[in-house]
Amino acid sequence: MRDVYLIGIGQTKVTKNAGIRGRYMAEEAINRAVAHAGIELKQIGMLVTGNMTAGRLTHQQQLGALHADVVGLRGVEAATVEAACGSGAAATRWGVMAVGGGFHDVAVVCGSERMTHACLDDTTAALATAADWELEGINGESFISLNARLMKRYMHTYGVTSEDFGHFAITAHENGFTNPNGFLHKKIDMETYLNSRMLVDPVKLLDAPPVCDGAAAVILATEEVARAAHRQGLPLIKIAGSAIGTDSLALDSRRDMMVLEGVVLSTRRVMEQAGIKHEDIDIFELHDAYTIITSLSLEAAGFAEKGKGVHFGKNGEITRTGKLPISTFGGLKSRGHPVGATGVYQLVETYMQLTGTAGENQVPDPEFALTQNVGGTGATVVSHILQRCS
Amino acid sequence: MRDVYLIGIGQTKVTKNAGIRGRYMAEEAINRAVAHAGIELKQIGMLVTGNMTAGRLTHQQQLGALHADVVGLRGVEAATVEAACGSGAAATRWGVMAVGGGFHDVAVVCGSERMTHACLDDTTAALATAADWELEGINGESFISLNARLMKRYMHTYGVTSEDFGHFAITAHENGFTNPNGFLHKKIDMETYLNSRMLVDPVKLLDAPPVCDGAAAVILATEEVARAAHRQGLPLIKIAGSAIGTDSLALDSRRDMMVLEGVVLSTRRVMEQAGIKHEDIDIFELHDAYTIITSLSLEAAGFAEKGKGVHFGKNGEITRTGKLPISTFGGLKSRGHPVGATGVYQLVETYMQLTGTAGENQVPDPEFALTQNVGGTGATVVSHILQRCS
Repeated sequence: MRDVYLIGIGQTKVTKNAGIRGRYMAEEAINRAVAHAGIELKQIGMLVTGNMTAGRLTHQQQLGALHADVVGLRGVEAATVEAACGSGAAATRWGVMAVGGGFHDVAVVCGSERMTHACLDDTTAALATAADWELEGINGESFISLNARLMKRYMHTYGVTSEDFGHFAITAHENGFTNPNGFLHKKIDMETYLNSRMLVDPVKLLDAPPVCDGAAAVILATEEVARAAHRQGLPLIKIAGSAIGTDSLALDSRRDMMVLEGVVLSTRRVMEQAGIKHEDIDIFELHDAYTIITSLSLEAAGFAEKGKGVHFGKNGEITRTGKLPISTFGGLKSRGHPVGATGVYQLVETYMQLTGTAGENQVPDPEFALTQNVGGTGATVVSHILQRCS
Repeated sequence: MRDVYLIGIGQTKVTKNAGIRGRYMAEEAINRAVAHAGIELKQIGMLVTGNMTAGRLTHQQQLGALHADVVGLRGVEAATVEAACGSGAAATRWGVMAVGGGFHDVAVVCGSERMTHACLDDTTAALATAADWELEGINGESFISLNARLMKRYMHTYGVTSEDFGHFAITAHENGFTNPNGFLHKKIDMETYLNSRMLVDPVKLLDAPPVCDGAAAVILATEEVARAAHRQGLPLIKIAGSAIGTDSLALDSRRDMMVLEGVVLSTRRVMEQAGIKHEDIDIFELHDAYTIITSLSLEAAGFAEKGKGVHFGKNGEITRTGKLPISTFGGLKSRGHPVGATGVYQLVETYMQLTGTAGENQVPDPEFALTQNVGGTGATVVSHILQRCS
């Protein structure tokens, strides 16, 4: 296996624009990433797209080949990867294998999702395909109701209240306020959080991510290509770890509903690959789609004890200057969650942090960052560790 | 890169059964493949599923994680790959990278599709997502109408008649008649072919594949694992080549509508990898979804001159004892075309041919076989070369 480097990033502003067209959103993100990396199209051997809902909501599949064609890469190896809301990072995982395994020297990974053109009922139904249809979806469970089940169980098991989750949302909105590519630009306080509309008890509006559109792209390359780009002035960011862990789709089939086993496995694998410990991680871009997932992720990833994740960060540990910054550009909650694109946005933002180009959102001098993208309520969990090399 | 071997196969009978459940169809195929390979579940590090329509027609995504869980592999790396009708082989391509690149020693690839439970209009609409929605689908083009455009253009350009395509369908049905896992068991002659119902002029019912359900699986492994299985009596079948080529989705955007550029690229790449020439290929399991695709594939793959593909095989060259057998178990036309599963069925059947276990469908003593799985009307083309090692 060869080392893999992240040599270019591109993103569109996360938005809600029914008039936007998916392929041009992807084109914009990919073109920016290619330009950023300073490579020529002919160097690119593969394009992988992560997407969840296009077949259902925009009647379009084969996005891999489509995006390759749109950006002038017609002919290259291309395909689409799907792992529900974890699609973007799962696509990246394939890209890492393609470059790391010696199949291509340069690969483009694009995450893209367009959801706001459909009526909300259709979008809700499309997102519910991430759940186990026979055991959950068919019984009327939606993505929100499943997260509500998790949250209610957590509150009951550990004796915490809705208010205990508020600081996750407040921190995300604080960070998202200065992200020019983010969707929601609104600071909130505990009162706003507590008064936000109840969606499915106990999940309130400010516990959940917004429905939105967006595309992001990264360029993966060999050390040789990365060092050539480095000589042209680009930073050197290595993919020190890349792993997928899985679990049952249905919550009731889990060994312990309060443990995200996919997060446990994925984190363990990626940290073993990188050869680092928890204390080495300077940023954790986790999948904060719902505040309950933030809490459970902090526990399963090993940053908090079981039942204590919800309290982690109440003293500022998760802010940009804290011990373990999360959601540094607003996370899924405020930057937005265009599902199949989210995992790639996480990598784009992490790259910016590690290269000191995060502007107002900069975390002080990070070296290792862990990104984690979750499909469904935890059935597919994709983690990457990015390392700044000097 | 390490050599990759195909060490086990499994398939379900292709069927039309609205009552069948997708996950158990996949489970059956995977369990058979695992049992065939004689490996233990703990040896398997990854599961990739190829699927096209489940998100839309069965409200189920994350099939990778779902199938892993159903077969007792909960926790392993898993995801879904989509490339329309080319999904099965595209998933295999990822499996090849995972094993060949040194990421896993054993990977399972499953292709699965369940389509007959939906009403035909929904299935037709789901299949149309393989086309370019903005340029084709939105104008009412279906998969059949696009193939009709290709066929009409071909007939006009080269001055051939509908009758000229008949021998492809006749050969497929002849071979499918003795395939116990096939869907259609009906021999046809030229009269039956010519009298079959017109779907979209000039595509007749017997130019097109049936809508059906099915799942197939293969086990990919390193040489070390394959040699261990070999010592237990299993044959040694190497993946001598694996490649994807792409083209525009929309027919009107092609450089030459009469040349499947994705087939040209994919075939060239896979043959370079295998280091073999056209005359070395003993079987060509091509993507005979429509008789026009058979014709264009034979040309673009380099087995017939441009405009002459339709005449190839009129003298028996494509039968099981001919110079270049195709559709040896009935192909997409008679074995059936459960779209995301088709590419894996091709590998399963080719394995049987190369190992001399094809029964009545056996081709005499083949050493090299080329499989080719096509997404849409040629936008994503995935080729594999399998080699019998002694």
